[in-house]
Amino acid sequence: MKKSLGAKTLVCPTPLFVVGTYNDDGRPNVMAAAWCGICNSKPPSVAISLRKATLTYGNLLKRKAFTVSIPSENYVRQADFFGLASGRDLDKLAAAGLSAVPSDLTDAPYVAEFPLVLECRVVHTFELGLHTQFVGQILDVKADPAALDADGCLDIQKMQPVSYIPDSRAYFGIGRYLGRAFEIGKSLQP
Amino acid sequence: MKKSLGAKTLVCPTPLFVVGTYNDDGRPNVMAAAWCGICNSKPPSVAISLRKATLTYGNLLKRKAFTVSIPSENYVRQADFFGLASGRDLDKLAAAGLSAVPSDLTDAPYVAEFPLVLECRVVHTFELGLHTQFVGQILDVKADPAALDADGCLDIQKMQPVSYIPDSRAYFGIGRYLGRAFEIGKSLQP
Repeated sequence: MKKSLGAKTLVCPTPLFVVGTYNDDGRPNVMAAAWCGICNSKPPSVAISLRKATLTYGNLLKRKAFTVSIPSENYVRQADFFGLASGRDLDKLAAAGLSAVPSDLTDAPYVAEFPLVLECRVVHTFELGLHTQFVGQILDVKADPAALDADGCLDIQKMQPVSYIPDSRAYFGIGRYLGRAFEIGKSLQP
Repeated sequence: MKKSLGAKTLVCPTPLFVVGTYNDDGRPNVMAAAWCGICNSKPPSVAISLRKATLTYGNLLKRKAFTVSIPSENYVRQADFFGLASGRDLDKLAAAGLSAVPSDLTDAPYVAEFPLVLECRVVHTFELGLHTQFVGQILDVKADPAALDADGCLDIQKMQPVSYIPDSRAYFGIGRYLGRAFEIGKSLQP
């Protein structure tokens, strides 16, 4: 018998994304977001949901462009800071000792030090309630060579991404390899 | 200098959700989905993206109701099977040796054996391309008592959720605790 926990935003895992945009004055801004994920394969697209109160929300409406920078474990403290502070008050990247790289493909900056980056342009904006969902077409994915395997593919154990768990508000690293998708279930085919 | 991997659906982590719906004849159906995540806090909502070719897509259009059952590590093989097989060909739950529970709150079944369950009704349907995104309002979250801590909150290390990593198509368990969200970044406040 399951126990009811109430109507709340509790799933696991959620990702820890850092969304990069330009402010009105052209300075880079970053914020942490977890209400995010891939939402479409063709065209490859990612959805990010933001509250209207954020500086990033206004930036997205104006430039229709953003990046997603995904931190490794060793940058979890910086990424958490990007969810606490506002770019209205300070230059968050400078305060965290990190640096912005202008994307060549979209009108937005990404975090130089984070191992995985998506460059996106906004193709849909959906009003959902407290949050607005921006769907971005993924123009390119870029990775640190140190996070790649010998074949040039992302090696998750080298990259060491972070999971955010809502409700308990905790960050966790990636764990042990459990098996290959679209493969390990075949043994159950009658 | 980052290396370009191309325009692809690569983020990490993505969740491993099992979406439960009823077929036309009232039989329960389940499918695995990873293009999913929380998309709104008020009302609490979850987004799931599905291809039109799936049986679940038609079920969602008709009943406007679904559940999300989130497996623990020990059910990763069964969840993978739910992404391989089609409910048009067989009763996937029966083939996997698992059982359906009818939700009291929405017109859909969930997987009895999985530790975390969301009961949802469809409030938005967005056409994105290959995938259609269904936004479901979360009516309740239910958990196995064995996955809860002494305070009745979800204990992620007891629950042992699974992450799916696209591109490399691999499943991973949850790793070590890295710190408390909205807290560990405070040390960077100037």
